[in-house]
Amino acid sequence: MRPNFSITPVAAEMRPAIENKINNKTKPIGSLGRLEEIALQICQIQQTVNPVIEKPHIVVFAGDHGIAATGLVNPYPQEVTAQMVLNFTRGGAAINVFCKQNNIDLIVVDAGVNIDFEKSLPILHAKIAKGTKNYLNQPAMTLEECERAMVSGKELIEKISKTKCNCIGFGEMGIGNTSSASLIMSAILKVEVKNCVGKGTGSNVEQLKLKIETLEKVFQKHVQNFTSPIEILRHVGGFELAMMVGGFLSAASLKMIIVVDGFIATAAFLIATQINNQVADYAVFAHCSNEQGHRAMLDYLKAEPLLSLGMRLGEGTGAALAIPLLQSSVAFINEMASFESAGVSEKKN
Amino acid sequence: MRPNFSITPVAAEMRPAIENKINNKTKPIGSLGRLEEIALQICQIQQTVNPVIEKPHIVVFAGDHGIAATGLVNPYPQEVTAQMVLNFTRGGAAINVFCKQNNIDLIVVDAGVNIDFEKSLPILHAKIAKGTKNYLNQPAMTLEECERAMVSGKELIEKISKTKCNCIGFGEMGIGNTSSASLIMSAILKVEVKNCVGKGTGSNVEQLKLKIETLEKVFQKHVQNFTSPIEILRHVGGFELAMMVGGFLSAASLKMIIVVDGFIATAAFLIATQINNQVADYAVFAHCSNEQGHRAMLDYLKAEPLLSLGMRLGEGTGAALAIPLLQSSVAFINEMASFESAGVSEKKN
Repeated sequence: MRPNFSITPVAAEMRPAIENKINNKTKPIGSLGRLEEIALQICQIQQTVNPVIEKPHIVVFAGDHGIAATGLVNPYPQEVTAQMVLNFTRGGAAINVFCKQNNIDLIVVDAGVNIDFEKSLPILHAKIAKGTKNYLNQPAMTLEECERAMVSGKELIEKISKTKCNCIGFGEMGIGNTSSASLIMSAILKVEVKNCVGKGTGSNVEQLKLKIETLEKVFQKHVQNFTSPIEILRHVGGFELAMMVGGFLSAASLKMIIVVDGFIATAAFLIATQINNQVADYAVFAHCSNEQGHRAMLDYLKAEPLLSLGMRLGEGTGAALAIPLLQSSVAFINEMASFESAGVSEKKN
Repeated sequence: MRPNFSITPVAAEMRPAIENKINNKTKPIGSLGRLEEIALQICQIQQTVNPVIEKPHIVVFAGDHGIAATGLVNPYPQEVTAQMVLNFTRGGAAINVFCKQNNIDLIVVDAGVNIDFEKSLPILHAKIAKGTKNYLNQPAMTLEECERAMVSGKELIEKISKTKCNCIGFGEMGIGNTSSASLIMSAILKVEVKNCVGKGTGSNVEQLKLKIETLEKVFQKHVQNFTSPIEILRHVGGFELAMMVGGFLSAASLKMIIVVDGFIATAAFLIATQINNQVADYAVFAHCSNEQGHRAMLDYLKAEPLLSLGMRLGEGTGAALAIPLLQSSVAFINEMASFESAGVSEKKN
């Protein structure tokens, strides 16, 4: 069953009132740069001049990829997906540390990891299957699986929204998923595969060459079936990406602030915009990854990420570092004095 | 009395041990980008593989500038310096909001504002004089004033250090102080004045033209006296810049982490490096300002700021936003699991 998403436009008509509030703060006009743009965006999302960020969350969607078992595209073995999910449950990964530091609730979702996790673990169990199929041979997912993953992502975000959370960062974990992201980028941006493929997580030069050759074959095998964004997603995507697509669209329909992490999250977001472009008004891009191709995707989306720290880890780490900047944006518009209230002279002219 | 600063080199010999710890964390090597560089730097400053950031502070040095009374270089009237200091004391400025958000202690210093503040205000009273002299006519400061300001900055940082604080962000407030920063930049980088002058805080095109013409005259008047960094500082600097210079050198001599804010703080830092270049090993650059010239100064210092948010406000706002990223760097090296402890496989080859 294909999920339905109804996204209302943000409150563009409020722009003058919001800008007026921002411009009356005790600072030169525009001097808070990107924070002013983010404040404007969040106000428009929330249809208020008094925005609030409540219970920010990071959701890490984890899934395995059939291709990864071949070792053709990934220097780390496929088992690392499950090992890292277990690391998340024990608080040992970078995303745990940054969420703890910044008071962000972390939810780890098994979208399709290739082991059976114990039910008692602090994981949201939403496994579609134990990894996708190897897309060298067949589509990564059936249409039914892809749609089920999207529905699952939607339901998860609806559940989080009920806790009063209004800001979600989307991260992922899945050995081999930079390959899915590159193939999606190539299909949507119409850029050659080789220009969409980066080193992923730690490949060397030979591994990169093999990765490119492999993904060019995959692209050629499936390209005639790229008849819609969901068909692209199911042929070369992953369960974690499909859940993110449903999650992005759901979050926008619930008027939540979406924080898009790095290369893989952005590829999933590309699919979401192809389904409903209004999702873009709800999104803040956290971080420009060091992965080749991310900048081109961001340019395609006319997106300017907040951070550029040379990171390429995924897990939602960029989102976790960017959320404090969103909170700064909300804090200045709510808490700074105005020229009038502070008795500060405005400039000449 | 010229202050003395003895700065010991950071622990470069610890680099292999620190990198070993970083590289054994459950993440691909280098995948935390700049955060890894910052962690390495902080470890070397603190001579440990278990660094800690304690009681971070922002110090905002405020001072008035004789030139500002002429209105030739500044669209805001000189009174705004004092008004903004009062705004700081009431919690209404951007720096108040960001320090509160990020649990940073804020100290506001009257280095030389052109009014008498009530002694009961939460200001550190260290006024050298009620503003500098107008450097169109004479040096901004006497040598005695300049050295007194540097000593005052030194003593202030020593006092803060005694509270166990080991991380200080340096910010400033002073109508007209972008002009001092531009002149210092021109004198040290040997770049024409016109290429060092930006719009400052909110100038329009005509105001900018007048600012450049005025500062070119000032430069020509004093250039033959630019015989040392302190002579540059006293001829065209300001009390708040001179205190920052003493503060930077003092913080480095106390092995504190220095967070340099924007254009003006960087100009003061330039002077500090000319006095003792080892101060640079203790500094993290918070933010690339939108003010023309900042990037050139950063390049000269071989510095890459953490943030680039199009801000140009000063007050230490960039430093206040960057300190959480320093805390993230310290958190990951202390709290993340290693491959071994987490049972995560390392990559092939």
